[in-house]
Amino acid sequence: MSDGVVFIDGEYVKPEEAKMSIFDTGFVWGDSVYDVTSAWKRYIFMLDEHLERFQQSIEGFRLTSPYSHDEMRKICAECVERAGVDNAYIKVQLTRGVISAQSRDPRLGDPQFVAYAMPYMWIWGEEKCRDGVNLFVSHVERVSSDAIDQRFKNYNRADLVQARFEAYDHGCDDALLCGPDGNLTEGPGYNVLMVRDGKVMTPKSNVLEGVTRRSVRELCELENIPYAECKISRDELNEADEIFCSTTAGGVMPVTQLDSKPIGNGHKGILTSRIQALYWSKRAEGWHGTKVEDVLNG
Amino acid sequence: MSDGVVFIDGEYVKPEEAKMSIFDTGFVWGDSVYDVTSAWKRYIFMLDEHLERFQQSIEGFRLTSPYSHDEMRKICAECVERAGVDNAYIKVQLTRGVISAQSRDPRLGDPQFVAYAMPYMWIWGEEKCRDGVNLFVSHVERVSSDAIDQRFKNYNRADLVQARFEAYDHGCDDALLCGPDGNLTEGPGYNVLMVRDGKVMTPKSNVLEGVTRRSVRELCELENIPYAECKISRDELNEADEIFCSTTAGGVMPVTQLDSKPIGNGHKGILTSRIQALYWSKRAEGWHGTKVEDVLNG
Repeated sequence: MSDGVVFIDGEYVKPEEAKMSIFDTGFVWGDSVYDVTSAWKRYIFMLDEHLERFQQSIEGFRLTSPYSHDEMRKICAECVERAGVDNAYIKVQLTRGVISAQSRDPRLGDPQFVAYAMPYMWIWGEEKCRDGVNLFVSHVERVSSDAIDQRFKNYNRADLVQARFEAYDHGCDDALLCGPDGNLTEGPGYNVLMVRDGKVMTPKSNVLEGVTRRSVRELCELENIPYAECKISRDELNEADEIFCSTTAGGVMPVTQLDSKPIGNGHKGILTSRIQALYWSKRAEGWHGTKVEDVLNG
Repeated sequence: MSDGVVFIDGEYVKPEEAKMSIFDTGFVWGDSVYDVTSAWKRYIFMLDEHLERFQQSIEGFRLTSPYSHDEMRKICAECVERAGVDNAYIKVQLTRGVISAQSRDPRLGDPQFVAYAMPYMWIWGEEKCRDGVNLFVSHVERVSSDAIDQRFKNYNRADLVQARFEAYDHGCDDALLCGPDGNLTEGPGYNVLMVRDGKVMTPKSNVLEGVTRRSVRELCELENIPYAECKISRDELNEADEIFCSTTAGGVMPVTQLDSKPIGNGHKGILTSRIQALYWSKRAEGWHGTKVEDVLNG
């Protein structure tokens, strides 16, 4: 376990000391939600937006947080401060908690809040996140939002893990999954966007409504690039001029191959490059950022 | 936390001491499988069958167990022995383990095996498991086996929890869920069976292939009761003469109301009663049982 600081049971501890009961129903029933943001040069990105989405996930799962929005803000900043890193991966999570062994009633849970800050991590390593990956369109179906509403960020991710295994089997870096209707959804931890005829398109439903994706939308508006959330079929994806993904742990990430076949000329796309460069230059300036110090002193 | 004994990290500990890393991907990716059996009068029910199904779940999730079948048998028996209970709820689980914070590669996991024995628990309390419950047919869809193969017993159960909440909202005891094709699947932790014109029927696909259900099938064969695994629509369920459920934590359990409307005359059905009585009388005789002492001395 690398460096970092975890807030658990009301205390700040080292990652290796951060333990939960094996009986927490957040684990045994998949009854937990989470959210992830990052600090870049000590600016926490869209902190309020991430905590607001976290609150939506909490309510969507009919959980109740023991901490207020403001308290969670402070805990996140304190984790970054104590971790002593400028660029951090920041997570908040809420589990249902332990329920008496003789009951199966989720209303009796005692929700447990955990937060932590670790050194910033790149989902595919820094180089691949910057230069591009080879994604496999998996045969594993994404869990339907009719079963588990994917707008609520949660740990029921066994489909995503098996899709990743399948991608590795095929010599690819990671996976994209289609939903029950056969249309494109998302990958394990990231949204996917495609460019066709100068227009950016991304799946509308059965996906997490990514905060990083929201920032891509904003950049598109700034740059007068058409942006649409819509249905995208498997065939339409194959006809993309460019493909890229978005997530906290990597930002705007080019996809250069699909099922080991080059997309366009096989290099990072022109629009992708532009959005990626803009994203990181703005992040470096503290775009949508909340300074760690300001939260701590606020 | 009630009494019991947990085997974790190679040691036998009290339930309140049984803790796992919050970074175990079995938790954060739902990347874990489990199985449950029971001891009744110190006979462990279908121990080898449960461990064989556990092995299928392990392989289905591309996990590897650090313990052999024989070692797991001994650990289960040792948990029951140390818990000092004659009637026990026995669980085995395997999680992917902790993966370095800088990687997302499930192949790098270090799988963690946990087992425990607790006093036997009745999923709806003993009285309701014996006399009957009121089940709600949920609007939450069961996660499709095309996304997460439900033959592999796993902790991705957020759909089941939300279905249970919905059942409570409607004044019912628990839920039944339909799959993506609209046909009946299972409930949160149990199979469902219906009786129509003297024939027992139960959903064939998108369900856990219950070991208790397998024993119901055996009892039906012994008693010359027709038994079939087949598609069951929502409408067919409404026309049932009797409905019952099966699971380790309750055995054969009557359903007397569906959506708060009586099934048949609203009392435990005749065939249900017969199968339930047979199940428990056989369990008391050590049917398909492995004596705890025999495993420990074997």
